[in-house]
Amino acid sequence: MNNSKVHFYYKNVTAEVIGTEHGITAEQIDELAQKTTPLIEKLNEHRKAGKTRYRDLPYNEQYPKQVCEIAGQVTKECENFVVLGIGGSALGNIALQTALNPYLYNLDPAQRKGPRLFVFDNVDAMQLTSFLSWIGDKLDKTIFNVVSKSGRTAETAAQFLIIRQMLLEKLGPTGYKKQIIATTDPKEGTMRKIASEAGFRTLEVPDGVGGRFSVLSPVGLLSAALCGIDIESLLAGARDMDQRVSRTDFFANPAALNAAINWHYYNRGKRISVMFPYAWRLKDLSDWYRQLWAESLGKSKNIKGQDVFIGPTPVNALGTTDQHSQVQLYREGPNDKLFTFLQVRDFDNDIVIGAAPESTPELNYLAGKHMSRLLNSEKTGTEYALLHDKRPCLTVFFDQVNAFTIGQFIYLFETTTSLAGLLFEINAYDQPAVELGKEATFALMGQPGYEELAEKIKPVQQIDGGYLV
Amino acid sequence: MNNSKVHFYYKNVTAEVIGTEHGITAEQIDELAQKTTPLIEKLNEHRKAGKTRYRDLPYNEQYPKQVCEIAGQVTKECENFVVLGIGGSALGNIALQTALNPYLYNLDPAQRKGPRLFVFDNVDAMQLTSFLSWIGDKLDKTIFNVVSKSGRTAETAAQFLIIRQMLLEKLGPTGYKKQIIATTDPKEGTMRKIASEAGFRTLEVPDGVGGRFSVLSPVGLLSAALCGIDIESLLAGARDMDQRVSRTDFFANPAALNAAINWHYYNRGKRISVMFPYAWRLKDLSDWYRQLWAESLGKSKNIKGQDVFIGPTPVNALGTTDQHSQVQLYREGPNDKLFTFLQVRDFDNDIVIGAAPESTPELNYLAGKHMSRLLNSEKTGTEYALLHDKRPCLTVFFDQVNAFTIGQFIYLFETTTSLAGLLFEINAYDQPAVELGKEATFALMGQPGYEELAEKIKPVQQIDGGYLV
Repeated sequence: MNNSKVHFYYKNVTAEVIGTEHGITAEQIDELAQKTTPLIEKLNEHRKAGKTRYRDLPYNEQYPKQVCEIAGQVTKECENFVVLGIGGSALGNIALQTALNPYLYNLDPAQRKGPRLFVFDNVDAMQLTSFLSWIGDKLDKTIFNVVSKSGRTAETAAQFLIIRQMLLEKLGPTGYKKQIIATTDPKEGTMRKIASEAGFRTLEVPDGVGGRFSVLSPVGLLSAALCGIDIESLLAGARDMDQRVSRTDFFANPAALNAAINWHYYNRGKRISVMFPYAWRLKDLSDWYRQLWAESLGKSKNIKGQDVFIGPTPVNALGTTDQHSQVQLYREGPNDKLFTFLQVRDFDNDIVIGAAPESTPELNYLAGKHMSRLLNSEKTGTEYALLHDKRPCLTVFFDQVNAFTIGQFIYLFETTTSLAGLLFEINAYDQPAVELGKEATFALMGQPGYEELAEKIKPVQQIDGGYLV
Repeated sequence: MNNSKVHFYYKNVTAEVIGTEHGITAEQIDELAQKTTPLIEKLNEHRKAGKTRYRDLPYNEQYPKQVCEIAGQVTKECENFVVLGIGGSALGNIALQTALNPYLYNLDPAQRKGPRLFVFDNVDAMQLTSFLSWIGDKLDKTIFNVVSKSGRTAETAAQFLIIRQMLLEKLGPTGYKKQIIATTDPKEGTMRKIASEAGFRTLEVPDGVGGRFSVLSPVGLLSAALCGIDIESLLAGARDMDQRVSRTDFFANPAALNAAINWHYYNRGKRISVMFPYAWRLKDLSDWYRQLWAESLGKSKNIKGQDVFIGPTPVNALGTTDQHSQVQLYREGPNDKLFTFLQVRDFDNDIVIGAAPESTPELNYLAGKHMSRLLNSEKTGTEYALLHDKRPCLTVFFDQVNAFTIGQFIYLFETTTSLAGLLFEINAYDQPAVELGKEATFALMGQPGYEELAEKIKPVQQIDGGYLV
């Protein structure tokens, strides 16, 4: 097993580095330890009581078996694999693919070990028509994986009905059923019913695991396994991190430190949490985190039912790209952000920068150096500049980027989210505010039973020309 | 000429819709008109005095000619066009391509009128090695467009030196010079010198136009023209919007209303500005805006030199995708955000959703409807839900998405940024905070003359194991 690790580094939030106005003093960190330690114990108890079932996913032996069996079949049948899902049914799949497969995976046959992968997490006709126009004559070499616990999510259902009709028309019922794999509720719901009737192959969305915590279940594992990602190593990484994030010693528990420092800064008015990877391949991992953090912690009520309207706003940035877009604001704007850098220590691939023309010696400092050195120097340079202006900075180091460390990272941030939920005293596992928009969509699409709501929406739907310029 | 327009809609920020605690009253909007009207006049004067030269780009007759001449040559020579640039030298190019060309442009030869387009705005070895491995045997059919005013931006210089060495080795000096086009300062600087000596074709980065305001110059126009985008129509759209954003009547000027409403909400504690397009193709336009807004308005000093540390934080979201990621936070979290939706009225392509299986009539409401109706219903549904919780919402409507409306949008937001700069009383055109990070990078890369700074950075560079978990 790989020994490379993910490490959490927090020196650059301390008062020692950025002063007491914006930094955390030794006394404050001790207070955080006292506050958080019982919550680690509480979370460990919740886990034993079956309240955080995502924590057990890396130990499930059935799921990887089922996934690998289907992946083994599919790999012979298809050149294109299409995930139809949204939110937690898409962001994890995208993150794993970007992190662990080459940039030109879809374009260059020499760089991939599995089928091309497409993840559609929208209902955009411009995007989908482009895809359908291309895929038209390759349908029999294309497998669609519809991922939805209920099958009633409007976006996924709409995509599915479009694909279903196309497959039925072009391949007939027997061909149709072979091209779809449903990842859905094991027993009930709309998609389970459709799958049973049509005879699709199926995998299960585990009970008691919310979408945003489901990447290490069949939801995220099938596309990964099929595209050549070592899912055993991914799960082993998560188990490895489990040892560390279950520790009741606050100072030895990276999830506890991470949650406590985030909570502390939120309460000091730093309500924006910037995840800033310095590695192109980690960019979609921070988009996965963005859902996890926002949907888990953005809550109007605490667990006692009192109005609180809390929740840090997660923001993605990418180094070095966003140095030339956001760093001006990050340094000189309001000191209302906590930065979490992601930094890679060893890159598996690297490039040596070529010689400079003789007449431009001002570029000599680059010549002969590795590109990874430049990237990491830019990270350190940016961090130095932020610290100069008293902006708190965390770093998550990856010894290397591989399935084992990505598994660690996912488990670290999932557990961090649970602990942050306990610190904020909110329910980190529900998403009540998503309902009203869904109902409004039903009303606007003419779903029977929503006529009253449709009336209420009319003033928003109808444009008032007096305010249109 | 196309008649389709971009419209600015602001009813859903008014107190009439969301109440006085979070909405804007008629009295407040009149105050904003009084405050802003003289600033529109001031900006018009600045323009006449040559202080906002980006405003004149759509009227420049030389640039499109020069761009089309080179595009005409290149289109016969190449199958792959690669932009090497970062920040303002990349984000506009990406935004135009995503907005105006098909989703699978690079993958499907049937869907493109020009070469494949790649924009590298990073120094990530994992990303670049994947590309170089693929491009290796296609170099003579690949043109590289290095975009840098000075030629000294570390990222672009590093990319250039790598490509230069590869081209020299594989094609020799004569082949090399044909494969590079430099968009750079017309007279001086590192890249101008290299281009003159090597004999590259060149285009100019206009004087007095900052990178983030340069998309309508050769910086953004060459890749667009080459990939089949109608740049004449793009520029005509910008000129069309110029008529509207120059109006001194506040209520008839969409840039003035937009700037004033944003400024007003910032002062009321809504410091996060979410741009929320409901169209996949507009997603990178909001990334372009993110630089424009953050780098222009994030400033520690006002024009009098006083400490202010201001600047709204721009955040990108994408509908419907981020309904399943961010809307829980947007509705229930702190009411600290102003939302700007982008909505398309007529989609050029659309898809009819197929029939539902007989046993699942709960999906019938989707069957036979257009996907664009679902997308726009989701937008209205989300807006309705946000308004229910008193969150202010603006919308920019696109009658259609085409080069003409994209030109309007770009010019609208550029002028909005200038007016916001006047309202915030800061210099919207500089970016002083980017310097220190650049210098720190020089120091870390061993550039002579930065030894003292290198010493200062050491504590940041060296990891203190006591804080590493």
